Amino acid sequence: MAHSGTPVEEDWLAALRNRFLDCRQQTLGLVAGLTDADMTVQSMDDASPAKWHLAHTTWFFEEFLLGAHLPGYVPAEPRYRYLFNSYYETVGARQPRPERGMLTRPAIGEVLDYRQRVDAALERLLAAAVPASVLALVELGIHHEQQHQELLLTDLLHLFSRNPLRPALRPALRDLHGESPAGGAPPMQWIDFDGGCFEVGHRGQDFAFDCEAPCHRVVLVPYALASRPVTNREWIGFVEDGGYLDPMHWLADGWARVQQEAWRAPLYWEQRDGAWWQMTLGGMAPLELEAPVSHICRFEADAYARWAGARLPTEFEWEVAARGQPVQGNFASSDRLRPVPAVRVAQSPLSQVYGDVWEWTASAYAPYPGFRTGAGAIGEYNGKFMSGQYVLRGGSCATPEGHMRPTYRNFFHPHQRWQFSGVRLARDRG
Amino acid sequence: MAHSGTPVEEDWLAALRNRFLDCRQQTLGLVAGLTDADMTVQSMDDASPAKWHLAHTTWFFEEFLLGAHLPGYVPAEPRYRYLFNSYYETVGARQPRPERGMLTRPAIGEVLDYRQRVDAALERLLAAAVPASVLALVELGIHHEQQHQELLLTDLLHLFSRNPLRPALRPALRDLHGESPAGGAPPMQWIDFDGGCFEVGHRGQDFAFDCEAPCHRVVLVPYALASRPVTNREWIGFVEDGGYLDPMHWLADGWARVQQEAWRAPLYWEQRDGAWWQMTLGGMAPLELEAPVSHICRFEADAYARWAGARLPTEFEWEVAARGQPVQGNFASSDRLRPVPAVRVAQSPLSQVYGDVWEWTASAYAPYPGFRTGAGAIGEYNGKFMSGQYVLRGGSCATPEGHMRPTYRNFFHPHQRWQFSGVRLARDRG
Amino acid sequence: MAHSGTPVEEDWLAALRNRFLDCRQQTLGLVAGLTDADMTVQSMDDASPAKWHLAHTTWFFEEFLLGAHLPGYVPAEPRYRYLFNSYYETVGARQPRPERGMLTRPAIGEVLDYRQRVDAALERLLAAAVPASVLALVELGIHHEQQHQELLLTDLLHLFSRNPLRPALRPALRDLHGESPAGGAPPMQWIDFDGGCFEVGHRGQDFAFDCEAPCHRVVLVPYALASRPVTNREWIGFVEDGGYLDPMHWLADGWARVQQEAWRAPLYWEQRDGAWWQMTLGGMAPLELEAPVSHICRFEADAYARWAGARLPTEFEWEVAARGQPVQGNFASSDRLRPVPAVRVAQSPLSQVYGDVWEWTASAYAPYPGFRTGAGAIGEYNGKFMSGQYVLRGGSCATPEGHMRPTYRNFFHPHQRWQFSGVRLARDRG
Amino acid sequence: MAHSGTPVEEDWLAALRNRFLDCRQQTLGLVAGLTDADMTVQSMDDASPAKWHLAHTTWFFEEFLLGAHLPGYVPAEPRYRYLFNSYYETVGARQPRPERGMLTRPAIGEVLDYRQRVDAALERLLAAAVPASVLALVELGIHHEQQHQELLLTDLLHLFSRNPLRPALRPALRDLHGESPAGGAPPMQWIDFDGGCFEVGHRGQDFAFDCEAPCHRVVLVPYALASRPVTNREWIGFVEDGGYLDPMHWLADGWARVQQEAWRAPLYWEQRDGAWWQMTLGGMAPLELEAPVSHICRFEADAYARWAGARLPTEFEWEVAARGQPVQGNFASSDRLRPVPAVRVAQSPLSQVYGDVWEWTASAYAPYPGFRTGAGAIGEYNGKFMSGQYVLRGGSCATPEGHMRPTYRNFFHPHQRWQFSGVRLARDRG
Repeated sequence: MAHSGTPVEEDWLAALRNRFLDCRQQTLGLVAGLTDADMTVQSMDDASPAKWHLAHTTWFFEEFLLGAHLPGYVPAEPRYRYLFNSYYETVGARQPRPERGMLTRPAIGEVLDYRQRVDAALERLLAAAVPASVLALVELGIHHEQQHQELLLTDLLHLFSRNPLRPALRPALRDLHGESPAGGAPPMQWIDFDGGCFEVGHRGQDFAFDCEAPCHRVVLVPYALASRPVTNREWIGFVEDGGYLDPMHWLADGWARVQQEAWRAPLYWEQRDGAWWQMTLGGMAPLELEAPVSHICRFEADAYARWAGARLPTEFEWEVAARGQPVQGNFASSDRLRPVPAVRVAQSPLSQVYGDVWEWTASAYAPYPGFRTGAGAIGEYNGKFMSGQYVLRGGSCATPEGHMRPTYRNFFHPHQRWQFSGVRLARDRG
Repeated sequence: MAHSGTPVEEDWLAALRNRFLDCRQQTLGLVAGLTDADMTVQSMDDASPAKWHLAHTTWFFEEFLLGAHLPGYVPAEPRYRYLFNSYYETVGARQPRPERGMLTRPAIGEVLDYRQRVDAALERLLAAAVPASVLALVELGIHHEQQHQELLLTDLLHLFSRNPLRPALRPALRDLHGESPAGGAPPMQWIDFDGGCFEVGHRGQDFAFDCEAPCHRVVLVPYALASRPVTNREWIGFVEDGGYLDPMHWLADGWARVQQEAWRAPLYWEQRDGAWWQMTLGGMAPLELEAPVSHICRFEADAYARWAGARLPTEFEWEVAARGQPVQGNFASSDRLRPVPAVRVAQSPLSQVYGDVWEWTASAYAPYPGFRTGAGAIGEYNGKFMSGQYVLRGGSCATPEGHMRPTYRNFFHPHQRWQFSGVRLARDRG
Repeated sequence: MAHSGTPVEEDWLAALRNRFLDCRQQTLGLVAGLTDADMTVQSMDDASPAKWHLAHTTWFFEEFLLGAHLPGYVPAEPRYRYLFNSYYETVGARQPRPERGMLTRPAIGEVLDYRQRVDAALERLLAAAVPASVLALVELGIHHEQQHQELLLTDLLHLFSRNPLRPALRPALRDLHGESPAGGAPPMQWIDFDGGCFEVGHRGQDFAFDCEAPCHRVVLVPYALASRPVTNREWIGFVEDGGYLDPMHWLADGWARVQQEAWRAPLYWEQRDGAWWQMTLGGMAPLELEAPVSHICRFEADAYARWAGARLPTEFEWEVAARGQPVQGNFASSDRLRPVPAVRVAQSPLSQVYGDVWEWTASAYAPYPGFRTGAGAIGEYNGKFMSGQYVLRGGSCATPEGHMRPTYRNFFHPHQRWQFSGVRLARDRG
Repeated sequence: MAHSGTPVEEDWLAALRNRFLDCRQQTLGLVAGLTDADMTVQSMDDASPAKWHLAHTTWFFEEFLLGAHLPGYVPAEPRYRYLFNSYYETVGARQPRPERGMLTRPAIGEVLDYRQRVDAALERLLAAAVPASVLALVELGIHHEQQHQELLLTDLLHLFSRNPLRPALRPALRDLHGESPAGGAPPMQWIDFDGGCFEVGHRGQDFAFDCEAPCHRVVLVPYALASRPVTNREWIGFVEDGGYLDPMHWLADGWARVQQEAWRAPLYWEQRDGAWWQMTLGGMAPLELEAPVSHICRFEADAYARWAGARLPTEFEWEVAARGQPVQGNFASSDRLRPVPAVRVAQSPLSQVYGDVWEWTASAYAPYPGFRTGAGAIGEYNGKFMSGQYVLRGGSCATPEGHMRPTYRNFFHPHQRWQFSGVRLARDRG
């Protein structure tokens, strides 16, 4: 469909342009106060430097929009195609992932210039009449950058956690801790859901990633979900009951990890003089007992569930339960950048469905029936990762506002812990 | 249910006793002609020595039946509990898996004595009245030993493949190669299946592993399956088309493996003077072009399917299609111990559903709705492996006769290649 | 001996104070123009970030002088003791070496403040009467910092070599390349030396590291040394003759490395369109054919020597030959920061004995007869590294002026290549 | 010198033939009572299977004598050249060292046939007139096989130590333990030696390995050696004083090993109910307190020496002190196969100079002045290993009688512990 200039479309186009600019601006906001060094170091293979995120999201627009659709566009620096390609085999060779931290150059100033140059060019592109397929790529680029906004935060948290000085991304956040509601988190309740045959997955014109479709039917047996995620206080109960010491709670691969890496608590927990502290984006802080536990991997989520006589929900149990809820919650825009205790909401039996922590599910990340990867590089976006990873749902305190929806599927390997990932229990109904 | 001695039950009990003895005897038959050395060496962490299989299956009966249920039973050697426990945390510490090949002692003669001693004791146990739960454990022990019969063969094949002399388990098998039917394998056809809501999984009194239940409903959309597995000839087409050189066919984790391990063909294929040969249990033999491709991992199966414009079937698509077929095929009892070309069967559209090669599916190995692991050590049998592995269906040329059924779920990691594993293509119906 | 304030001593003390300040200033000069990111990233376990070098050399003065000898001194930041201790077990736990690159904080500004604070305190210390043992530690601290000045340069070169943009520490250096003398390097000649019993090692009051003493006697048989180090042009001959492809030239451990790491040329060499280029501190530059080969490990030096029908000199053959030479050469103060072609010097048969490239020797780094490590932390300076390493002699183009002497022993593992290390051939005399 | 058949030479030739046959027979004696499995498994990369030793020593004669010098000789099996070549690049490709344990075939019977076939052919070769150079190769082959006799024992000990059943090569040896002399080991005394200039290394016509020559002069300063090696009782003192817990005793690389591998005692020591036991070739036995400590690596030897206020002797200090002693001691021919307590010998101040345990020295394994490797494959025998290894002297309880001499240099990496290696202390004389 061509961009034909009717008033409605013009509004929509203006909105897209604004969303593009807002998104680009928000990314910059995340790194305010950081040094070039903070933005350059790679703290593990799974994480990327902030500067690399800034450049890669920019390259995404340059590669898939400007190069292909803006006549006469000359790349800022041809070698950036190599440096800032993430995993697109179609595009060509690239800086190996574990070497992203070697890039002390380009300096942060050069990367910011690169961003401005590409932003300006994209504005020129959008000023002309462009086909809908191009606009769809702009939309994709915005959602792509939002994903990297979240990773940028979790990657910085990991980096700072490796520094014995435990620096804070936002020193002011330290003072916010301990603001728990007077009565603590509401007690966990089991909320029942009916079984039956349900339609799940994305349908319609709104944006969704390819992996959320096709919409299809699944059978669910009657089940119950916990009214809220497991809290830090509850998790301490698991720890103190020897949860990390008893193989009977664990999947075999999980138990192997526990032993090999000597896990005794979630990532970022530290015990000091008998009290639990946690590394946060505000630096070290006393563990907020009523807040949802975070930075657990799927093996831990699964072990906890087994210890508690429960199980993980499937992604479809979660989706069916969630889709009646408003997509509201503690997202990154709240600028707390940490999970906070649940607040009882009168009209809804489930709290913290969105935001706070991603919720691990029982479901392997797999293609939906009828799924097809797109042609070309964009086809590499999701499909090739559908092996060995598991689905998480609901978004976290580091997820940008507006990025979430009921059908959204995030995915990580079952041993990965550096995201804001938690767990909501499920069980079968008698 | 107690063992109360009615005629019907007596027949059943006699049959169980016979099946037990047959199974034990069949295991010994597999290692005829091998040296103690052949049976002792461990060729990789994933494989176990034949002698260890002989002893571990014996220990299984000793640990779970004799120790618990035969009054006055004294273990043959208390340290075998450590040496031959595989992965039962409930039972206690054990010889680390990668160290199974250090056990040059007990010598094979001692292991055979151990087998006899346990067999005799089990016969004593079965001569008395025993509760049904004990008989169920005997049944489980038989099926357990059958699983190890298959592994024993695939582990020996791997061991012999690592020896530059390429020894044969059955030298006589070499002569059987090239007996392909005159016309070659029948051409592959697409067989259509309807969509709908289907009941899958095990139901009833016959033996099945816990992971095959509960029986439950799933929704399938209309699909088609290939009439037979992909053949070696077809696979050569993939190789010659650069299938192992183009990342666009591969899952990301698969492509990483291809590069890291320089895969260019299935495991056990070797090119000599321009012709393809394959290591088999009969030693090196010319590749049987019309036989199903074997010793491919799930990454390869998936890449081939994508290259061929198809996909892997889900385990339920397979099960629904297979359950109308007789459970017959080229199993280990045929003593060919290799996949053979399909033979067109008039009454059935699908050939080689059972036997020849395990068929990789799209499905992650996961608990069925309502699945619960059993109490105690037996609960460790399957449940704790439900992470990171994928389901294969249908059995292979190394699977014992009588071990297979439509609901049977085998599972391996997606990079593992040493089983007789192949692929049957699937696709969506317009 | 106390510091009693006679005129001669006052001069000497003033000179020490000046040398201290000069040394500290020179370190800062090396990092002029670098970003905080450049100074923070660690490119391999063997290398350290420039910022860490800046801080560690400062900590050395703080730990061993201010803390112990300046009454009332309060450490700048107590946690720096953990962060910037290199390997002193006596001092306590420390940031693991491979984690030095995680320290994005303290920021470079804080490290520069730390340097100033410690410099000022040291000046206060030196303003008072201090015992000779304390002055000896100041002297040691200066030589220690000089060692780190050289490492700082080689570590930066390694870091920049890992960046596909191949940044230059000194972009202006690029223009200096190709300034070779008209006639090329003088031809290599064999210079004969007599055998006999010689005294080697450090004797006297001047500064030397503990490992250079005691002075002792060794027997040498008549030998010859090459008049100059092997050049890049000569090394190309080795490469083109298949030197990296023939195991017969190599020590067994060296050949294993060649295969494992696919070495085909010295570190930092790259072939572009048939010509050899080299990564330098001025960025990529055409290989200077007449300059000494650099960035070779001892395995390479040894293989070349065997290929050339020669051998490595022992450290004592080198020392006896070198000690008649003036300690002059192409050191870091020349600010070329790369080896340059030999210039024939009329009065001396050996050229480039000092500076340009460290020369690998046949000698394992071992204690001299009667060697004793000192008490306390300073005793850890050298002695504990006397295993598995080999001696290099003569200094390089990255060694500070004034740091070298005939008895100086540098040492590295035989596979390490990132120093400015080359080779001078030796042979037995008929 | 041709083999011209004078009476003296005939006697010498007959003696060589007998020594050849004896040596071959002794090797077979070592494996009496073992299974094919015991002789096939490889317990670590550093060790080889006994069957491989049997075959490799045979291949050595086949490759270097029969193939080259017996007209018409046809190799037993051409593929053995690949399987049983150890490290001779000149000969060609070979079974990778860590894969020697995959060779369950040839079966032990085939290997014994191979030995007989080669022995018979070698007797035919020696029946004819052969040049002296060929006889020198026979001599080398005998010494080579003796080296493998020792390795065969230490490799079997390592293998059996990895089996929780702790099997014994010689069960009868178990009963011999505890036969310590009534009074215990004689107290350690310091024996003084003069300094001066000494000739060391091999000179003359008797057999020696190439690395023992050329004979050359070295300077020694006055030194003292312990009258006997350190005993197990003394080593317990080191252990109980926290010797394995204090980094100040250790070389840096040694301390890294201690931590990484959690060393707390010599290899093969086990604490049971408060008492120390040791794995031996007779199985587990109480630690013989008065016997020399064994199975320590050079890092341990060095740490003990530093803890004891002493140091390791250089190989020349050892040689000069040892060469006045008779070459007698507890060698393998005593069939104790373990170190035994020192017995005071009236006429000699040093005991256990030969046999019992190899003594680690301060000396890196390096070429003597004027050393040249031979031409062809034989040149690979020693020279290419002269990097990163250290010299041991004196032989052990597993060394064949007649294999030792004062100039003999054994060598291992400083972390290796599976040989019968111990330590004799040295110190400087005031």
